[in-house]
This record gives sequence, structure tokens and C-alpha cells, in this order.
Amino acid sequence: MKVALCQIDTTVGDLAGNVSRIVEYANRAASAGAELAVFPELAICGYPAEDLLVRPAFLAAHDAEMQELAASLPPRLPVLVGCLERNGRAHGLAGRDLFNAVALLHGGQVRVVARKCLLPTYDVFDESRYFEPWREPARNLVVIGEHRIGVAVCEDGWNDAEFIERRQYALDPVEELAKAGADFIVNLSASPWALGKDVFRQRMGMAAARRHGIPMVYVNLVGGNVELQFDGASFAAGPNGLAFEASVFVESMEIVDTAESWQLAPTEYPDAEMHWRALVQGIRGHANKFGLPHAVIGLSGGIDSALTATLAVDALGPKNVVGLAMPSAYSSDHSLEDAHSLARNLGIELHVLSIESLQKTYAEVLEPVFAGTEPGLAEENLQSRMRGALLMAYSNKHGHLVLATGNKSECAVGYCTLYGDTNGGLAPIADLWKTEVWALARWLNREGERIPARTIEKPPSAELRPDQFDSDSLPAYEELDPVLRLLIEEELSVGEVAQQTGMPRGRVAAMYSKVQLAEFKRYQYPPTLRVSDRCWSGRRLPVSHRYREH
Amino acid sequence: MKVALCQIDTTVGDLAGNVSRIVEYANRAASAGAELAVFPELAICGYPAEDLLVRPAFLAAHDAEMQELAASLPPRLPVLVGCLERNGRAHGLAGRDLFNAVALLHGGQVRVVARKCLLPTYDVFDESRYFEPWREPARNLVVIGEHRIGVAVCEDGWNDAEFIERRQYALDPVEELAKAGADFIVNLSASPWALGKDVFRQRMGMAAARRHGIPMVYVNLVGGNVELQFDGASFAAGPNGLAFEASVFVESMEIVDTAESWQLAPTEYPDAEMHWRALVQGIRGHANKFGLPHAVIGLSGGIDSALTATLAVDALGPKNVVGLAMPSAYSSDHSLEDAHSLARNLGIELHVLSIESLQKTYAEVLEPVFAGTEPGLAEENLQSRMRGALLMAYSNKHGHLVLATGNKSECAVGYCTLYGDTNGGLAPIADLWKTEVWALARWLNREGERIPARTIEKPPSAELRPDQFDSDSLPAYEELDPVLRLLIEEELSVGEVAQQTGMPRGRVAAMYSKVQLAEFKRYQYPPTLRVSDRCWSGRRLPVSHRYREH
Repeated sequence: MKVALCQIDTTVGDLAGNVSRIVEYANRAASAGAELAVFPELAICGYPAEDLLVRPAFLAAHDAEMQELAASLPPRLPVLVGCLERNGRAHGLAGRDLFNAVALLHGGQVRVVARKCLLPTYDVFDESRYFEPWREPARNLVVIGEHRIGVAVCEDGWNDAEFIERRQYALDPVEELAKAGADFIVNLSASPWALGKDVFRQRMGMAAARRHGIPMVYVNLVGGNVELQFDGASFAAGPNGLAFEASVFVESMEIVDTAESWQLAPTEYPDAEMHWRALVQGIRGHANKFGLPHAVIGLSGGIDSALTATLAVDALGPKNVVGLAMPSAYSSDHSLEDAHSLARNLGIELHVLSIESLQKTYAEVLEPVFAGTEPGLAEENLQSRMRGALLMAYSNKHGHLVLATGNKSECAVGYCTLYGDTNGGLAPIADLWKTEVWALARWLNREGERIPARTIEKPPSAELRPDQFDSDSLPAYEELDPVLRLLIEEELSVGEVAQQTGMPRGRVAAMYSKVQLAEFKRYQYPPTLRVSDRCWSGRRLPVSHRYREH
Repeated sequence: MKVALCQIDTTVGDLAGNVSRIVEYANRAASAGAELAVFPELAICGYPAEDLLVRPAFLAAHDAEMQELAASLPPRLPVLVGCLERNGRAHGLAGRDLFNAVALLHGGQVRVVARKCLLPTYDVFDESRYFEPWREPARNLVVIGEHRIGVAVCEDGWNDAEFIERRQYALDPVEELAKAGADFIVNLSASPWALGKDVFRQRMGMAAARRHGIPMVYVNLVGGNVELQFDGASFAAGPNGLAFEASVFVESMEIVDTAESWQLAPTEYPDAEMHWRALVQGIRGHANKFGLPHAVIGLSGGIDSALTATLAVDALGPKNVVGLAMPSAYSSDHSLEDAHSLARNLGIELHVLSIESLQKTYAEVLEPVFAGTEPGLAEENLQSRMRGALLMAYSNKHGHLVLATGNKSECAVGYCTLYGDTNGGLAPIADLWKTEVWALARWLNREGERIPARTIEKPPSAELRPDQFDSDSLPAYEELDPVLRLLIEEELSVGEVAQQTGMPRGRVAAMYSKVQLAEFKRYQYPPTLRVSDRCWSGRRLPVSHRYREH
């Protein structure tokens, strides 16, 4: 059967827009001779629609658009598309109001042919909040002509006993569909990217194809919806390999023939390149979908803001990116020079707004409540907040999206000022460890200097007091990052981390304590582009709690 | 059987502290002649522990503390306490790692005797993220001496087909326990308060007692954990009424005898009084548990900041609350006067820091990028951000918790400045509609003026430009609040709201659009004390989406 994998970019809540895109791709598939077109999970409403799903008017609008869609598709092409279905107790379960479903649209008719069985409810996923799990995967089988097609929805493909190390569910819907006699399986996904996930997904599909002796066709969403970056990377896997090369982070339509033998191996891209693709898509997607396609960034001369600006330029173009350098008396000469070099390299506008007069005025205003105290954290944070206010003032005046420049290491230990450098409508690199920031910066310079070499090489400093360096209060990032990664991403105990990294236990405990005490900052942090399996919005902790480890 | 209802205040993650408190209350129960002591849901780890529950070291520490607890309790008193139990696939389910369980601690031994069946995963609740549902409620029966005790955990009591209008689950664990021959049911809860919930809970217990002809004993958590306010209001209900008056928002230990006949009706408190109790507990609880028991508040002379300051005084005492008045050229004379009157009435310190010099300096600094533009939103927001920065400077210098003063109506439509008046470690009244703010202020003045009368009576104004009033850009709050409530809390469509309220449909649509466009502000809003069934943190929407209603 000739199956078209329609890897499209949907926007949450844009029912009419998503439907037009589905029609457009279905027409392309029909023209190219497809016998079946497959679209991603929940393609009509967009993913993740969150609490729009509890709004009756939204559900009604979805259903109306789906009827409209069925009437607008090429009449002879069967189309499988992810959609919402009301539970309505029709199935005798007093459960959630909805199923995460798949409709077959054909000849103007709508027929729900499959419902998702495995509902991810961990990390950034909250599907049990909205959906009732479907308990009969073998019924997710649809017959089109001579073909018996097993239909799985995303997570349904992620519970193979022979491939998944740590199974979360009792049921393997793919196995059930294979047993029920499916000729091949299509999986409609909205699977957000994290480093390594594209390759893992393809290996998983190949393992399932080998195990069950039938082709697996994965159609994944592409594009960004706020934090989540969908990589696409759709594929078709047979027992001997893939049918076609994955296209990542772009829309595409490819036709595979399930009768052919497939031989390709998955492509692996360098980590830095995948980070770059994901972050560029993320900035572009959010700026456009949010409706502010211009960005303003505070340029300190340091690596984080330089990387953020470079990514913004790659996403939006140099004409749409503005830098503000906001030096104080504590800023080194090289900071301003490096900001200028960066702006020159990138071809972006740069304005220099000194904050020295503001420091003086704030000191005068605060005199009645600060008299007799020593300068310290309050004065340091205030500088960061002046800069944050200037960025927001620029944004309010000229309509630019402020990009926050913090990285994951800083966010982890709270080495940032709330309402200061954390200000922004989006935090592009807050899920990248500092060591990954350097790696990505070096990769971006691989064909010539874009980020000034000195910016990459100089020791990190917040420059909020004379001769301040990050290393005054933190271990070197090369030492710190692995510790934080094990504590946060692997949830290893302080004792285990000390053992694995060699950092003294007391020092690991102090880092863990910093992570916990910074929770209140992360609670108010901007949306962060997700590139790992443990990003901030997928890690949910109380703002305040008393658990400590020693 | 003489059952002690131990309504205690636990702290998330404070395993040793929670255990000490359980021991203390168990000793009191034993001394008072109890034959069984019952504690709230998850009393050992605190509620909600969120992703601490995915940390193996936390689970190990919990288990060790539970053993320690069993060894420290009065030896002859059986104790039922909410605890974590590893699923460990021991039950043949490949599911979540944990059960939300109940242990019987007796004679130094620990025995898990019940597991929660119904896992709330809506609103602020995420239990399906962590727990596997238990499917055999009839096995949640424990025999102590001659008594067969049915054990339910919180939500297990909330699915009575004859009482709950909109059932979420197929199973009624209480019914199953009654059928299995329970003499009475104990329900261990961590049920956070919202307006009216205390009375509803008691009526539900009475209905169940009548229906099944056996007593229902509800033991609820009390105290605040960040946003959630647990009211306690534990009770014992028989077929003819309650055994004792509810105590709300305080720790307590009461003994009921299940052999007696109970006759009391539930007490109903005025809405304003319950709001006051919840919010005072919330401020006190968070300030103490977070470790900043002093508060600083920007006093504008308006109603929101006046109410917030009054609640803070009732929570922390006047000596621990400081006001900052930060007038600009646009501030009316009465604003500063009203702030002074309030501070006098409350007996709190007030500092006046004029922001006029800052306005001037910011204008000079921004000249290179603002030249040739008209003053507008950017300049208005900047004033709010100067004030926000001064509050944070005070907080950083003196260690005070900044309380944000926004109300729910403002948050809903985005009538607030991000990184300005939204700054704070806690937003005490952001779940109170403006009309509820006025009602609570009047109630606080019932025995004499605490909040200046003019503050309550004058038309609301942000005073960010000359002669600015909220009514310039918004309908009167008496008209707006019902519209927002129906749109947000009831999820009615724009058309339905227009019909129910009489506001023109286009105007309702404009308000709904404001609500949607302000999502990015709420994403970065401080933790808000929850007093409704639809508070901001229980309403989860994408920062950016394109769904609109007309």
C-alpha cells in the first residue's frame, strides 16, 4: 500500500488553520499517487491543547471543523488523522470525557477507528488529565481495501517488552495489533524532541518491525508549540531497515510502499547540530505563533547572550534582532567590545545604554531604607533588574520579544536574578547545560567566527561587582554540570553523585541545596525551549519544601 | 470504637518533622483514651510532594522514617496514617511506581492496609503522575479487635452515585467497603479548601452515612503548603448528623465514639470569614515554611494593597509587616494619605520612596531608543517595574517576603505589569475576584475601620498616567466579574455568557480575548493562594495558542 507520511506543523487551537494544512497535504499526497495519507496525533486541535480540552465550545468547534475537513479532502484518498472523540459514557466507562482518537476520513465520512491506550502522564505530559485510556487495542484495526492496518497513537508504540527497559504499562498495543493480524502498523505521533530521541524512536520502530515481521509507519508532528519542539523525523521501518531518510525540523510529505523492502539505517546528526535545529525552530515557532517576530536581547559580552543572539538571528534574520548593551561601572572594557564584535559578526543593531546613572538614582531613592548597610546582594540584583526593565521598556515600545539568556546550570543553582536577567517571553537556552552552551557556540563557529572567540574563552562572570567570577561561588562548570545532571536528570542521591563524580559529599549536598532553594525562581521563569528529557517545566516540585539530603 | 481524628499540619518533605508531630498527636490521643488514631493522607511525606516522589532517595528516607515512627508510637494504640507504598510490580501491574496508601502502625509493626483507588488528575491535582490506582477497594478493610474498618483515601469518598452529580469514575470504593461489611469507614484526606468545600464535604459524608447506615469518619489535613490551603474541618457523620463541630484552619485532635448517635448539623461560616481564615493561614504558612516570616508590600493607597497588608498583619503581626509607598507625579494626594492612614490603622512601618527621580533617569537612559516616540504603555509599565525593583531591593536587603497585591479580575484580563506589580514570593489575593476583594475589606472593617473607608469607596485606578481609571479600559467590576467567572470558572462559551449576563456578545468576546492574551503573564505569576475550584495554577493553558471565540 502506498502510504503518505504527512509531517505537518500544527498550531494549538488554530482549528481552521490546521484543517487547511491537512487539506493541502492530502491534496499533495493524492497527486503523488498515495493510497492512504497519515497525519500526526491530534492534528486538528494541535498538541498540547491542555485545558482548552475542558471547554465545551472548543470541543464543539473541533467537531465542526472535522466535518468540514472530511468534506474538503480529495474524495478517493482515505486519510487517517488524530482527533478528539467524546467518551460520552458510550463505552460504559464513567471516566474522562475524551479519547485521544484517530479518525478515518473517506468519501466525506468521518469514522473513529482507533483510540489511544497508553497515556503519558509524566515529564511534560498530562494526558491522564484529559483522556480515558482505551483498553482494547486489538479493536484499533481498520480495513481499507485489502489492507488490515493497525493504528497506534504515539505512546502506544513505546511499551515493547523486548525493547523498552523500564515498562510503564501492562499492555503493548502494537503486539496486540500484530496478533490481531495487522498487515502493517501506522503510528500517529506528537512526540517532542529531546537529545537522542529521534534516533531512539527509529530504532524502536525497527525493533518492532523485526519482532512482529510487519512494517511500522511513524508519522510525527513537526514544529514548535511554546516549549515543546517536535522534530518530525517520521519514518517507515521494516524488518531490514528504514524506507527513507528522516527529515528533521521541517514539514514534509513522503510516500512509502509497504510492499517494498526497506534497507536504510537511521541518520545520526551531531548533538550540537540537533540542538541548533531544535532551538532555531523553537525561537522561530514561538515568535511567529505568539505574534512577535522581532527579538531584543541584552548583550553582556558573555557566552550565554551571544549564543542566544546567534540563534535568534538564525531563526528570525539579522534585521529582526536587536541587542542592548547595558554596561555599569563594573563592566570590563572587553565586555562592551565583545558585544560590539558580536553585533558586527551577526549584522544586528546594537544600542548601548549605560546604567550608571540609574545605579546612582536607585541608591538615592533607597537611602531612607538602606542607610547604614553594606552594599551586597540587593545592590547586585538591582543592576540586573535595571537591565531587565530596560529590555522590557524596549519591548513595550517597539514590540520585540525579549529573549532571556540563562542556561540550565544557572537556573539549576539559582545563579540568576528574578525580574532581572530572567525577564523574557522565552528562554531559548535554559535547558542547555553551560558545557553544552560552549559546545554549541564552538559548533556555530565551525566555518568562521560568529561568536567572538574571547566570549567563548574568557572565564564566566556576572560583573555585578568588581572582579566577580562565577567560580567565586560555584565549582567550574566542567565539574558542576555532571553533578547537576546526575542530581536533576537522573535523580541520583547526594551520596551516589559524590561516589560517581568524586566531588566531596558535602559539596554535592551544598549544590543540591542550592537547586532546591532556587525553586521559587524557576516557578516564575519564562517558558524554556525543551531539549532534554528533564526540562524545568517537566520537573514539578513545590516552591517550598523541607526535604534535604546530606 | 473511640476514634481520634488527628487533624495535623504537615510540611512537604519534612519527614522527621511530620513524624514527630504524628507521635505527639498519637500520644495525646492515647492519653485521652482513644482506641484508634487516624491521621491525614500522605501525612509522613506531606501533600503535595510532587516530583520528590520520583526520587529514590526520598522514597527510601520516607520508608526509614515510617519504621522509626512505628517504633515511637504509644505501643497499645493502633494508628492509621497515610503513606507511600512501592508498587514494585508485586501486584502484577506494570504501572506507576507507587500507591497512595494507608499503613496500620501497631505494636512497632508497619502493615499497609489500604490503597487509594480514585486518583484526582484535574484542577491542581496530578495523582496519576505518581500513583497506580488500586482496583480492589473491598480489600481496603482492616480488622482491629471486633471492628471491621473500611479505609478510604480522600477522593475514594467522592464518587457516590446518589450524591455526586458528575461522576468521574466507574467505581465507588465507599459502597464497596459498605457491601464488604465495614462497621464504619475512615477517610484519610488531604482535601484543599475552596469556597463552600468544607460544607459540601460534610454533607457528602452525611449522605454516605445515611445511604449505607454506617458512620463515616473524615480526617483532613490542615495548614498551607504554598498555594493549597487545607482547612481541616474533619468530621464524623452518622445517619442522623455529625458527631462534632468542625474546627477549621487549626490543628486539632477530637475523639468520637462510633457507638454513639450523632446529631449535629454542619456549621456554615460567612464567605468573607472563610476567605479571611484561608488567606491568613496561607500567608502565615508560606512565610514560615519558606523561611521568610516578614513581609514587605507596596502600598498604593488602593484596595488591593490595603487588603493584602491587612491580611499580612493578621498572619504575621504588625511588627513583621512593612509598607513602601512609592508615589510618582501621577499619584493623587489621597493615595499617599490613604497609605498613611492604613499604616496607622494597622500599626505597621511605612516608608515613602518617591520614584520621580527614577522616572527622569530612565527617560534619559532610554532617550537613544525612545527618541521621537509618544509616551505610552512602555513608560507606564516602567513605573510599575521601578516599584517592583524597589520592593525586591528591600526584600534582598532586609529579608522580607514580597507580597504581590493583584486580584483575580486583574490577573484574568492582564491588567498588571509583569516584573512590576506582579513581583512577589506569594500572591495572597490573586484568586479573589475584585468584588470579593471589596466584600472581604468591608468584613474586615465590621468592628471599626482598619482599611480606610476612602480606599474602599474610591474608583480603582492604576495611576500610571494622569486621571487614569480602570473603567477607562474595563467594564465596572460588578459587571466584569460575573462575565469572567462564567468564562473562566464555568467554561461557558462567549455566546452563553452574553446570554446569561446581558453583556453584548462582542464585548464578552473582547474580554475572553484579553484573558487568552494574558496567559504569558500568568505563566510567570507568583504562587497564588487558592480559594476557588479554578485557581490559576489549577487552570493550565498554553502560553500561546490561536483558539478564539466570537
